[in-house]
Amino acid sequence: MIDVAITSYLEEEHVESIRAVDGRVRVLYREDLVPPPRWPGDHVGPSEWSRTLEGEEAFLDMLREAEVLYDFPRGHVEDLVRVAPRLRWVQASMAGAGEVAERAGLGDTDVTVTTASGIYSGPLAEFVMMALLQHIKNLERLRRDKAEKRWREAHTETLYGKILCVLGMGDIGRAIASRARPFGMRVAGVKRKIRAKDPALDYADELYETRDLHAALRDADYVAVALPGTPETHRLLDPAAISAMKQGAYLVNVGRGRVVDEAALVEALEAGHLAGAALDVFEEEPLPEESPLWDRENVIISPHSTDNVPGLTNELQAELFRENLRRYLDGEPLVNELDKKLLY
Amino acid sequence: MIDVAITSYLEEEHVESIRAVDGRVRVLYREDLVPPPRWPGDHVGPSEWSRTLEGEEAFLDMLREAEVLYDFPRGHVEDLVRVAPRLRWVQASMAGAGEVAERAGLGDTDVTVTTASGIYSGPLAEFVMMALLQHIKNLERLRRDKAEKRWREAHTETLYGKILCVLGMGDIGRAIASRARPFGMRVAGVKRKIRAKDPALDYADELYETRDLHAALRDADYVAVALPGTPETHRLLDPAAISAMKQGAYLVNVGRGRVVDEAALVEALEAGHLAGAALDVFEEEPLPEESPLWDRENVIISPHSTDNVPGLTNELQAELFRENLRRYLDGEPLVNELDKKLLY
Repeated sequence: MIDVAITSYLEEEHVESIRAVDGRVRVLYREDLVPPPRWPGDHVGPSEWSRTLEGEEAFLDMLREAEVLYDFPRGHVEDLVRVAPRLRWVQASMAGAGEVAERAGLGDTDVTVTTASGIYSGPLAEFVMMALLQHIKNLERLRRDKAEKRWREAHTETLYGKILCVLGMGDIGRAIASRARPFGMRVAGVKRKIRAKDPALDYADELYETRDLHAALRDADYVAVALPGTPETHRLLDPAAISAMKQGAYLVNVGRGRVVDEAALVEALEAGHLAGAALDVFEEEPLPEESPLWDRENVIISPHSTDNVPGLTNELQAELFRENLRRYLDGEPLVNELDKKLLY
Repeated sequence: MIDVAITSYLEEEHVESIRAVDGRVRVLYREDLVPPPRWPGDHVGPSEWSRTLEGEEAFLDMLREAEVLYDFPRGHVEDLVRVAPRLRWVQASMAGAGEVAERAGLGDTDVTVTTASGIYSGPLAEFVMMALLQHIKNLERLRRDKAEKRWREAHTETLYGKILCVLGMGDIGRAIASRARPFGMRVAGVKRKIRAKDPALDYADELYETRDLHAALRDADYVAVALPGTPETHRLLDPAAISAMKQGAYLVNVGRGRVVDEAALVEALEAGHLAGAALDVFEEEPLPEESPLWDRENVIISPHSTDNVPGLTNELQAELFRENLRRYLDGEPLVNELDKKLLY
């Protein structure tokens, strides 16, 4: 028997569907041992929640048995290797699972980690396109004029012919590119290493390697960050990179907050070097009340939840897990396996 | 010689390019005889502008000579047939030129009218997609939370799998559909008559004829109006059609204001039957100050200028006109010819 512990909230129908994958699977799940979702599809739960003493015992029993974990267990990330000695594989519920895998100390083990990459791409790409469109169509001006009941004809702009630089051409970057190009935008993709016949070429008009970042940024009207949080991407958009951006460019970040030097971003916005920014992620979350980003008119702030789409995510998550569970049982390579050195 | 009078503002380089089309063309254009553009690409000019007495004389001389007009002449639409006795063809600067052609009484003449259909499709489709995305991602809530510096995680929605009903599958409708489908939306197109192997089928998942409008509206999460103003489309979205729309649906109008019964729309918004609306066109323009639309939070008001994209439009306009002028000289059918009975 293979013991699979589900360690964050999952609807009963999805739990059942995982149970039904194979007779060799034993599913361990108790709804009262995982944080209640704050909304459909939430995997984190309210910060004040905790298990009862009895619950904590039962949960530790589950972890002790588990060979497979569906999600990193709340309260037991740092001591995961110790409390789950039989662990072979963790299916994470987030697209960027590198940070949490590192916190769990799995980098030095042979425990496999798979991410939920792909599940969140659509909703994140929608946030990026919303940001671009509300900027190009000057929705803020329409809103202000409306407040004054002011009919003021004026010209707008178009995305047609504009250049969008996408940092990170993984699943999220590709989802962004494939929605931007039907608007007639040119996509300049940035990735760590360009391979021969790189599949990312199907999504971008040009590809740049990360070391040529400044060249990629120079002509871009829009820059979308779709990079995971890794040591390599940490503050990749540093003051020099932000300076290299075109005057009047617009930044969107749906990757990780630490990819952008936030103080340098604020400075560039204040100086008028950048026309605006739309941010779903921040260096520190929740964004501290004293952050100057709150007060900037030309900034959209989204509380790292633009990818929280109920239904869509849990259904796709369970589907991904079932597929991976079948592969695991058959000894096949898993989908979305995390490279524990590169952390993505 | 063929006398071509340019009757709205055009940049010198574009005037030159028209002059260069053919030696048989004589271009009549005086910048001081046409309203100055309020922004690059504007063809209407400020309302208080008028010609001097001398200018009016000179302008009438131009119209008297003209066999071809590039744009309907401000101040001489209603008496066009009388003041331009040699007129054979008018190239309009707007996509929906049916109304103005009717006002000019050209329906009963054999004067050809061509529209600027296609020029405006991209910017209009961008307005539609902006409206859909800011609604699905709840930008209003983000904005309000930001004003209070409030970090409030919550779920959002996705366009994936949502149904967009597009009224009018001409150039604008197709531009909308081809930008919406990469988001995973289903497009239900509505058109007057479905032909065998209808080319609109390349852009829609389903097609409905106008007489089946209610069936098309019933399941749509979003409805985008891309219809010209004609007697047939007048108040097509009447109270019954608006009632037929799905509870919580969202309406976007980039066609003509008179296609929608505005009072019924306001009622549906107030009753919560519709979730919101984004309008670039209105029954009366400018939208009167007493219109209740100004005060509705869930309504985006754009002063019929979301298609005013400087550069892009005048460049494409002049290109279209040169192409049509060549065809006219060669006796070939023109691009974008207006059906003066159907008015589109």
